[in-house]
Amino acid sequence: MSTAIAAGLGGIVGASNVEIRPAALVPYRTDATFGFSGIPWAVVRPACVEEVSRVLAWANQRGVPVVPRGAGTSLAAGAVPIRGGIVLALTRMNRIVSIDPVDLTAVVQPGVTTQDLARAVGEHGLHYPPDPGSQRVSTMGGNVATNAGGLHGLKYGNTGGYVLGVQAVLADGEVIRAGGRLLKDVAGYDLVRLLTGSEGTLAVLTEMTLALRPAPAASTTALAYFADLESASDAVRGVISAGILPATLEFLDAKCIQSVDAYAHLGLDTTAGAMLLFGDDGSDAEVRRTVSAMAEVMHAHGASSVQVATAAAESEALLTARRCALPALARLGGATMLEDVGVPRSRLPELVRRIDAIAERHKVIMATFGHAGDGNAHPVGCFDPADPGQRARVTAAFDDIFATAVELGGTITGEHGVGAAKLPYLQAQLGRQQIALLARIKHAFDPEGILNPGKLGS
Amino acid sequence: MSTAIAAGLGGIVGASNVEIRPAALVPYRTDATFGFSGIPWAVVRPACVEEVSRVLAWANQRGVPVVPRGAGTSLAAGAVPIRGGIVLALTRMNRIVSIDPVDLTAVVQPGVTTQDLARAVGEHGLHYPPDPGSQRVSTMGGNVATNAGGLHGLKYGNTGGYVLGVQAVLADGEVIRAGGRLLKDVAGYDLVRLLTGSEGTLAVLTEMTLALRPAPAASTTALAYFADLESASDAVRGVISAGILPATLEFLDAKCIQSVDAYAHLGLDTTAGAMLLFGDDGSDAEVRRTVSAMAEVMHAHGASSVQVATAAAESEALLTARRCALPALARLGGATMLEDVGVPRSRLPELVRRIDAIAERHKVIMATFGHAGDGNAHPVGCFDPADPGQRARVTAAFDDIFATAVELGGTITGEHGVGAAKLPYLQAQLGRQQIALLARIKHAFDPEGILNPGKLGS
Repeated sequence: MSTAIAAGLGGIVGASNVEIRPAALVPYRTDATFGFSGIPWAVVRPACVEEVSRVLAWANQRGVPVVPRGAGTSLAAGAVPIRGGIVLALTRMNRIVSIDPVDLTAVVQPGVTTQDLARAVGEHGLHYPPDPGSQRVSTMGGNVATNAGGLHGLKYGNTGGYVLGVQAVLADGEVIRAGGRLLKDVAGYDLVRLLTGSEGTLAVLTEMTLALRPAPAASTTALAYFADLESASDAVRGVISAGILPATLEFLDAKCIQSVDAYAHLGLDTTAGAMLLFGDDGSDAEVRRTVSAMAEVMHAHGASSVQVATAAAESEALLTARRCALPALARLGGATMLEDVGVPRSRLPELVRRIDAIAERHKVIMATFGHAGDGNAHPVGCFDPADPGQRARVTAAFDDIFATAVELGGTITGEHGVGAAKLPYLQAQLGRQQIALLARIKHAFDPEGILNPGKLGS
Repeated sequence: MSTAIAAGLGGIVGASNVEIRPAALVPYRTDATFGFSGIPWAVVRPACVEEVSRVLAWANQRGVPVVPRGAGTSLAAGAVPIRGGIVLALTRMNRIVSIDPVDLTAVVQPGVTTQDLARAVGEHGLHYPPDPGSQRVSTMGGNVATNAGGLHGLKYGNTGGYVLGVQAVLADGEVIRAGGRLLKDVAGYDLVRLLTGSEGTLAVLTEMTLALRPAPAASTTALAYFADLESASDAVRGVISAGILPATLEFLDAKCIQSVDAYAHLGLDTTAGAMLLFGDDGSDAEVRRTVSAMAEVMHAHGASSVQVATAAAESEALLTARRCALPALARLGGATMLEDVGVPRSRLPELVRRIDAIAERHKVIMATFGHAGDGNAHPVGCFDPADPGQRARVTAAFDDIFATAVELGGTITGEHGVGAAKLPYLQAQLGRQQIALLARIKHAFDPEGILNPGKLGS
């Protein structure tokens, strides 16, 4: 099969952009998810939409699976070729096509990294708010395909809120455009939003038109310690009740605080039961007003200490505590499995309490951090990968955590996506009828089932 | 047929909630769109989701069209039963199920009016921003089904940005739930957003979970006159370049200013070539800062006069100028056809210039107002309904205007929807392949084609 692919696709993308040597394919077997791998038959690197179109038409005629891939940072095995086939690496299509400071839009190809986009628009005094944890390497195609989140969802929403238009290639190679440089467009079903978060199972995104905002003049981060997550959560309620929707409102539990401090030596209070990172951006006066109002709320809800950054570098240092939670926890047990459940904001303390009880019941080391403002929690199971018993216990604990999130009116995935990793849990959240409906939608786009098979819609 | 419906559906919703008398059906032949009507076979008024489910199952088995209807304020013939069948009036399902000030959500049934929701959340110090022109009577089911806009799209977005979850009944009577009280949920294709704006052609919405915001402490409106729309548009660019995304940024052309003043006697400057209404909301200090910064921008771009409201009543009076544009224009010619094209913000002056040229070429009276901040323009054709020649010329002018909007990278409908009125123009914007794709999506939801036939997806 691989040699047939090399011959067939070499004519489309050029022989040097088709890779079939087994050793060269190894990095494409996996993504950033623990425990999932596949065997790609080839990696193909198209340079433009026409090449993507011809590759898909070729694959569709032959029933060959096609797995679109950006930086491979999926935490849900979204980019793993679990049924083999072609990995369609979109990293060569990495051009920022335009940035328009009047329409407040950017047009980008899928291979542009989140950070490169953020920097480029920053040079125009503009702001692209979504900042997923992997922003240094993650690509905009992947961000849009997974409707990626980030640290500022409460105030700014997720990637989906910034996608105004897409160019996409359907499974049979047909190219469509939906939306555009328009803030309002209701002509037709909302294909822009349907393709956003469809994880490469409905079409391949080849260009995206994104909404930008004026860059805020100022931003400040602050930190508050609490005796437990309940008081921290009460403080979050207090912030919302004060009429503030801040840019940042993140939490770390006690284990996270201790691990982060051991890892990054930030001088955190390792005796605290919970920590909130909070902050805002906007005009200088507005930021001062909201951050000091939030600091007051923290004190009023029993914060043992509140620390407001007075300079940009200090803000960055505080955010580091949150951003390095995952690498810090990775050192606890050797390997980590990171999860991504979400609940209504008001149910977050109950969720974390139940996560702790579940971890104890299954005898696993688990720590939780996440987005206090939007109810999205990331429990992290730490284990020795050489010990299959430990790993099985972490998996069993996550099974219970998913069920708990759904029971609390929540979701099995707030921002990472379903991929192959979450697919077995999806029906418990959506129900049998909706799973059947997703499959019918998938069939409307991809009747041969070539696009990222074994994922959403399968 | 009607007596069979009365017998069949009376058993589901009660005889008093099925109407088949021809005289009683007359109001359901039309909506707010000029020139479109149908002949409903019956009007059915369900009280709950179970009744909606049983009505749809009944209709689906018999291939009977079902046209969901709220207040009937569609301006695109979205609620007209053009193929007959049952009008499913959802006005009895008008309960605000809950308002949660911690999760910042409201759960509503489809028959709740926009204004009732806005008032109810206001009592909790909360804010539901979308305010379509018909907000006094329009229902939330209709708002969500059409992804309705309003006066504050630039800062706050449209209805779609506030829909977190839906309960919906599929054509065969199956009930699904998608999303929930969650700011982040990527489990499955985004059915919430696919159903939002699907105009009753994919499912019937029976409950919606909506995002709320803290109510802004203050808001102010202001007004600026310009010699022509080009200078007004330059001022809009100036506002954006100053890093301001204001809550209000609306325009009226000269004909609108004159008509509004003749109608409402507001003391407007009827010699001006264009008028901008602008304003912001937020903290008291922030509103003062942004509105005075915008006023400066207006002066710098040649505004002949700028008037900032100093009290809430004055703000309301200024907004009245914008809100009464349509009734004022209605008096010019006897009947009006209102359109709803959109372009990238930077192309708005070119669009309005070309609308004026098109009106002149077709010898029709046409005035334009709309949303300067988001590029959505409402040209209004005024004509004597007794003169078929006049009406035909208005229609011909709109044909040219739709083509112009698409040519400028825009849309044939920014916020009113496609309905039956715009369907003939849709392919020019979306292309043949995408129209075929919409039909396949429609088929995935509604294989018998009973839901609002002759509209989107047909």
